[in-house]
Formats: sequence, C-alpha cells, structure tokens
Amino acid sequence: MSLILYDLAAADSERRFSPYCWRVRLAIEHKGLPVETIPWRFTDKEAIAFSGQGRVPVLVDSQTTIAGSWKVANHLEQKYPERPSLFGGASGQALARFVESWSDTVLMPAMLPLIITDIFAHLHERDREYFRSSREQRLGMTLEQVGTNRENRVGDFRRILGPLRTTLKMQTFLGGEAPNYGDYIAFGAFMWARSVSPFKIVENDDPISEWRGRMLERFEVASNSPGYDS
Amino acid sequence: MSLILYDLAAADSERRFSPYCWRVRLAIEHKGLPVETIPWRFTDKEAIAFSGQGRVPVLVDSQTTIAGSWKVANHLEQKYPERPSLFGGASGQALARFVESWSDTVLMPAMLPLIITDIFAHLHERDREYFRSSREQRLGMTLEQVGTNRENRVGDFRRILGPLRTTLKMQTFLGGEAPNYGDYIAFGAFMWARSVSPFKIVENDDPISEWRGRMLERFEVASNSPGYDS
Repeated sequence: MSLILYDLAAADSERRFSPYCWRVRLAIEHKGLPVETIPWRFTDKEAIAFSGQGRVPVLVDSQTTIAGSWKVANHLEQKYPERPSLFGGASGQALARFVESWSDTVLMPAMLPLIITDIFAHLHERDREYFRSSREQRLGMTLEQVGTNRENRVGDFRRILGPLRTTLKMQTFLGGEAPNYGDYIAFGAFMWARSVSPFKIVENDDPISEWRGRMLERFEVASNSPGYDS
Repeated sequence: MSLILYDLAAADSERRFSPYCWRVRLAIEHKGLPVETIPWRFTDKEAIAFSGQGRVPVLVDSQTTIAGSWKVANHLEQKYPERPSLFGGASGQALARFVESWSDTVLMPAMLPLIITDIFAHLHERDREYFRSSREQRLGMTLEQVGTNRENRVGDFRRILGPLRTTLKMQTFLGGEAPNYGDYIAFGAFMWARSVSPFKIVENDDPISEWRGRMLERFEVASNSPGYDS
C-alpha cells in the first residue's frame, strides 16, 4: 500500500510549495517508496484533523499517522531500515539537526522576504485571507512591506548562505558524494522559492546554484514540479 | 609511540588557545590515544617547517606528518577505525563539514572582536608584533578598533548563535547523546575564548552555556587547561 502524503498546494494543485513537505517528499524518494500525495491548502484544517494538528506534512503509513517533517523522516528511517539510509547512522542524524536548525532559523527567514509576494500570488483563493492575516500578524507588517526592495536585499541573503556555499565548494552534496537528509532540508527551501518565484535568488556561478542543479537533475519529482528555473 | 601535536601556546606555555588545535586535541581524546603536545608560537615557523607549511595544528604520527585540523581528524578516523568513531560514518563526516563551514565563516568571525584584545594580552612577547601586523592588515583596522565596544556588540553575537542554540535545545550534543567531531569544531571556538578572555560571551541560562559545561565536565584536558570560567 502506498504512503499518503498531505502536501501543501497552490491554486494550481500540482504546484507544491511547502519547504517542509519537500523535505519529506525527497526523503520518500530517497527510500524508493511509492507515495500518493494529496494536495492540501492552509485552510483545509478538517482534512487533516485526524492527525491531531493543523499543518502539513502529514504522512499516513498504513495504520500510522505522523505529522511534522523531522518526525516523518525519523519514521521512514526506522520503519524502512533495509532501504537507503537518510542519515547514515545516529551521528549523521544528530548533525542533520544542525542543518535543520540553520535552515529554520537563518536560511528560510532570510529567504521569505524575497518570495513572500510570489507565494501570495500563487495561493488558492480560499487561502489568501488566512495567509495574509496570519503572516502579517506574525511579521508585524503587510506582505508588501515584508517583500519590498528585494533587488537591494538579495545581496545580504547571498552572504547569509556562506556556510552552505563553503560546504558545497568542498563536496558534491551536504551528504558527501550522494545527497542525504541534510540536502533535503536545505534544498526544500530552494524548492519553496522555485515553486512560486521567478526572482533570481542565487547567481548561476554560485556553488549553491550548481548543487541545486544537481539536485533537480537527480530528483525528477522536483524538476518536473511546476516552478520557475531562475 | 605517542602522537605529537604542535599546539599554539600563549606566553604561559600551558595556555593553549587555538580553536583549530582544540578540535584536534579533543578528537585525539575521543580516540583515546596518547599524545604529547609541543607548545608552539606563531613565529616558530622553523619548528614546523618539516610539515611544508607554517600553521598549527601539525600532528606527527610515527612517520606521518599531517597539517590542518580537518586533515588530522580524517587521519585519526582512518588510521584508528577500531577506536570510537569521530563521525559515525561517511554521512556524518560530510555533515560535520557544514558545522565546520558555519564555525569558520560565521561563529569565529563574530567571536573574534569580542576576544581579540584578550588574545593579544596573552601572547608570548615574541608573537605580538606578528599578530598585530598580520591581523591589522587582514581586518583593515587596529586590534583595539576591532575589539571596541564589545559590551554593546555581544547581543548580536548571541543572536548569531541561533542554529547552535536551537540544536542544543533538542539534543545533548551536536553529535546526539554523545559528542562527535561536530561538537569539537564548535566547542573549539569556545575554548579559544575561554583560554584568554574573562568576557562573558554567553549567558549562564543559554543552552549553549550548558552544553559548554557538559563538554568541560567530560574533557578534563579542556577544563584543566588555563582559562577563564566566565
């Protein structure tokens, strides 16, 4: 039986833009497991009420329901140990948490202003009011104010990418010669941007851009997904 | 036969303050290997000329000489595979590079201004002119200018520690339940500060401070080393 993944979708139900869902989607690919994804919108709270909370990713694996990207990744690793490892052991799993912490507290907060108006433009109509009011309350300003002047701010964003860039100058993937869950965490953020935004967030000759290209080449589920190759 | 480690020393030859040497010193402890450390100063270029370069750490392991902390850690891992692993496999080793990249490009550059005048004050007399002129040229200002106003700048430093803090809220060490080379990389920076500076760089109730305490408790080579417990 296929896994079932509730996956955040834009107005176009094939356009999937959650960075957290992308982490899980690629982890499922890594494990080589069949999956059926169900397009979900922010306001479809009832559809995932069975998970005991209101956000995606939500994974249903037979009788088990798991919510949250880290918990889903752990579930996959534990339940399918005979398939390629996401972490390469306990040490790698612990260190992937540092990549997650950096992505959640540095990378994505810095990326958000560059793409927030593009996110809004792609939302399903029924999600727009929810997205605008929840984000404007959290950020203390309008979406348009958050997203203003991105041409001048992208330089700061690119500087913030230093640790990712330095690592990718030394090796092909965060996971070394092949991607692991560390790559899926960081790449999830770039899929977030790719799915909704034509804005160029990294230069073509940036090692990060080259890594992004290798990831897209490796994962058709990512490269065939609606998005902007900027 | 003991390993021999050339280790950066202050005026007091027992005071060891290189963050890169600390990475290696703790990696050697992790492996449980005997080591003899040789105090070395910045200007002792001739003493390590046999290594083909002019910086420490330099490790001599029987007939083999290795320079640079990452290369030394790799040497230890490959040559002593029967001893506790520093990385827990190839995935962990690759992800440790991200911790290294963050430490080298974010953590240590942000820490340097907070401790630079304390570093200078502890240097051996014969290192002072070298340190001052090389650092002032690199940084484009005097040491005193770099180090000015640290009381007001420490807040920015603490914010920069976000990814480390977030990780250490979730687990005991960067390596999980026990420290691995990721911990030695980041903790090396805190040993750099501890060895020379009474300035309080993290608050007592910061999860990072608690982790630093656990590391000091676990590694007597660190806690018994001359320094400031601020």
